[in-house]
Amino acid sequence: MKQIEAFRSLVKKQKAYEYAMAIVGWDSETEAPKGAFNRRSEMQGVLSSEYFKLVTHPETIEIVETLFAQKDTLDPMLVREVRKAKKSLDKIIKIPENEFIDYQKLLVIAQRTWEEAKAQSNYDLFKDTLAKIVEYNKKFVRYFQPDEHPYNVMLDDYEEGMSMREYDQFFDRLKRDLVPFVKQILEAAKDVRRDFVFLKYKEADQYRFCDYLIDELGFDRNHGLMKKSVHPFTWNTSPEDVRFTTRYMEDYGLSSIYSVIHELGHALYEQHIDTAWDDTLLTSGTSMGIHESQSRLFENTFGRSRAFWERHFPKFASIFPEQTKNIRLEDMYMAVNHVEASLIRVEADELTYPLHIMIRYEIERQLMNGEISCDDLPRIWNEKMVEYLGIEPKNDAEGVLQDVHWSGGMIGYFPTYALGSAYAAQFYHAMQKELAIDDLIREGTFDPINQWLKDKIHRHGSSKSPRELLMDVTGKDFDPEEYITYLKDKYTTLYLE
Amino acid sequence: MKQIEAFRSLVKKQKAYEYAMAIVGWDSETEAPKGAFNRRSEMQGVLSSEYFKLVTHPETIEIVETLFAQKDTLDPMLVREVRKAKKSLDKIIKIPENEFIDYQKLLVIAQRTWEEAKAQSNYDLFKDTLAKIVEYNKKFVRYFQPDEHPYNVMLDDYEEGMSMREYDQFFDRLKRDLVPFVKQILEAAKDVRRDFVFLKYKEADQYRFCDYLIDELGFDRNHGLMKKSVHPFTWNTSPEDVRFTTRYMEDYGLSSIYSVIHELGHALYEQHIDTAWDDTLLTSGTSMGIHESQSRLFENTFGRSRAFWERHFPKFASIFPEQTKNIRLEDMYMAVNHVEASLIRVEADELTYPLHIMIRYEIERQLMNGEISCDDLPRIWNEKMVEYLGIEPKNDAEGVLQDVHWSGGMIGYFPTYALGSAYAAQFYHAMQKELAIDDLIREGTFDPINQWLKDKIHRHGSSKSPRELLMDVTGKDFDPEEYITYLKDKYTTLYLE
Repeated sequence: MKQIEAFRSLVKKQKAYEYAMAIVGWDSETEAPKGAFNRRSEMQGVLSSEYFKLVTHPETIEIVETLFAQKDTLDPMLVREVRKAKKSLDKIIKIPENEFIDYQKLLVIAQRTWEEAKAQSNYDLFKDTLAKIVEYNKKFVRYFQPDEHPYNVMLDDYEEGMSMREYDQFFDRLKRDLVPFVKQILEAAKDVRRDFVFLKYKEADQYRFCDYLIDELGFDRNHGLMKKSVHPFTWNTSPEDVRFTTRYMEDYGLSSIYSVIHELGHALYEQHIDTAWDDTLLTSGTSMGIHESQSRLFENTFGRSRAFWERHFPKFASIFPEQTKNIRLEDMYMAVNHVEASLIRVEADELTYPLHIMIRYEIERQLMNGEISCDDLPRIWNEKMVEYLGIEPKNDAEGVLQDVHWSGGMIGYFPTYALGSAYAAQFYHAMQKELAIDDLIREGTFDPINQWLKDKIHRHGSSKSPRELLMDVTGKDFDPEEYITYLKDKYTTLYLE
Repeated sequence: MKQIEAFRSLVKKQKAYEYAMAIVGWDSETEAPKGAFNRRSEMQGVLSSEYFKLVTHPETIEIVETLFAQKDTLDPMLVREVRKAKKSLDKIIKIPENEFIDYQKLLVIAQRTWEEAKAQSNYDLFKDTLAKIVEYNKKFVRYFQPDEHPYNVMLDDYEEGMSMREYDQFFDRLKRDLVPFVKQILEAAKDVRRDFVFLKYKEADQYRFCDYLIDELGFDRNHGLMKKSVHPFTWNTSPEDVRFTTRYMEDYGLSSIYSVIHELGHALYEQHIDTAWDDTLLTSGTSMGIHESQSRLFENTFGRSRAFWERHFPKFASIFPEQTKNIRLEDMYMAVNHVEASLIRVEADELTYPLHIMIRYEIERQLMNGEISCDDLPRIWNEKMVEYLGIEPKNDAEGVLQDVHWSGGMIGYFPTYALGSAYAAQFYHAMQKELAIDDLIREGTFDPINQWLKDKIHRHGSSKSPRELLMDVTGKDFDPEEYITYLKDKYTTLYLE
């Protein structure tokens, strides 16, 4: 009992530091003047080191180890927390401190090197740094899980319960079924009318539409806000305070809209988590993949449905009367579901998006297996682009260098993006059995949808693992079939019938 | 040497906590959603208690005491820091913990009680709470400075070097000379044209003018920003990050302008402090009074000068063409220098303002002396209003209950407001000997003024005491004479010639 109390007080302190650092982060991303950078970095350094001291304090280690040893006698939710704590502790304790510090330094350099390489569109500048990052990751995994394949450990890190076995099945299915289907659709989607989305859409008007949308879709303004920033993101310290950002491009009217709907999916997940988890390690979304499933569900499944535009096109047209002159609802619906082979992942449409991820997964897998070396990346990247999407990057900047992830040491993260869409299809399928989703969207009655998501998924926070959640909500384990079916049905109807 | 290093590292940690808490504070005042209140309070509680543990840790006490004992052998700036540290430490250590906690609890209740009493305009509801606050303050002072008059200790707390002796002289002068002068001016100022400042001034347009002004007056946007909030305030974590807020009242065109110029005075002070003090206890402005001198110098001396409007009226008129139709520069100048007997301190003009402060000083002094009891306050307040300003509050809300300070335990704070204006007059006088201030303002060449303030006052941060600063800048100690002369000259020219 004394140890449990000590653990609770430890978690609370930890959360207070995380809270402070999160607020500093929000401020720095959305508000702080540029010249505040140096001082802030210094202060953040001191705070991080205080935080590090707390979580690695001998007392902390003792509390966690003691509870872990007694796990058979403890409440299962507490055990889940203790496992989490022990997992992160092990990583810190088992990696030699000097190697950990060297790796952190490498990442700082890697960030700059990648930026420079991308600016010059010259992968060679980044190659050796990336190779070092890969080696460090392999080495670190051996310290705390020597018997497991390093890539499996990293995949599980970003998505509990996922390994190469599941992802191989997933991406093999995509390769076999989706790649040929996408080629058919690309051909058929050529003539979709899109000119009107590239007219000038004033920022203030885009804001008005987005501001209207977040009410329509059930965002709780008493516990959150929407703001502008360079890159859209969702941020939260607790369900009581969930914020997200968007950006506005005046020459592309849909830019803010779909970014807002996407982030709103993340934000609603966080807002709906039971506050009972506030002081535990089980608050916040349970995994990258489940989080992404919520944002994709909102952005693609709801936000690009015909019902959505049946509901919201009148408002859109009233805010943008000039841009939508002679544009019918059907034009809007087709424009937001346009499919096109493109080079940049973050700009890809719903259908081609998973193929961008597949390329990254295959490369990461081979790198971690030692089947390819970092030297080969641009060539392999470009070959895969041609094979899956039929287009080839003209340079490294629009190819292998486009994403920040690897320079930040994030290997194993990408697959969760595609996984999220697949989870979303499974959740959508389950929801359809209970709710007339399109009718609700068309009537603007979004509450039952949010209530369903809250009850089944959101409120649980991290108290269930992603796979437990899938089982509980859909009655099935992860199954890529439903995703393939969803995509094929939707795009066949749109383009082939 | 080892102790000095330990002290430096202690101060740095302390500053990192203060930094985090300041950012959380800024966020909570200007941005956070309402529903985030409870969780934030909890997290702030944990952070404050960690901070408290740090600054009262036995190691901390030992470091400070050891250095204090060696003060004759140390660098004078370090001694100044150590004295500051010891002063706050003494307060914490010498007050019995249970009494300190009881007092903190009382203040939480006092805040709510005052709000309720003000809302009901019923001082009786607040009376007993205020009496308790006064008693606690007397008692606490006896713990750490038993030989000094409690009010002197409190006055010195808010303004180093000031006691009843100086303030009595100051306010006696005001009472003797200013009160009769104000009565003359009130009579003469009756017919100043002000109708045009109460037309509708759109918020967005007020913002445009303010945004223009802060550039004109030399605000460094790379190290700060302006934002909107309910109450205007200036906020800083270091000279690299200085922010201020304003509010907009559309039915009063000058509301945001003078609040912006006022806060800008505070903000420029903080921006100009030498960053060499960043990691010491000597950064930030040296005292309430000196800070207020800078805001009043900008707001009143510069901002309400004829030269100021000669420079900025064309811009003002271009943003507000309708509101300034048939309005001449001279009308503007008179309108911003209108004098009127009013009930509310924060709305008072430059000339009557110090009389509002005088009332508060006299009451505080008598309360701390035990010459009056809290029961007598509304009667005494109203009598003094009649005596000094010739008007009487109709109720407690617009009388004794109007200010938040006493409910927050801040007794001895008010006098620094008037002191700031008096300091400002002394600084202005000194500056006039070296710069053709009005010409510079008229030509929009504000740099030499800022440079002068920076060199003489701002850059020193807290490394000089207010009195040292006064001596160094003006060659004289505090002298209310120059303030009286400044006010009499200005308002005689405006209204009696």
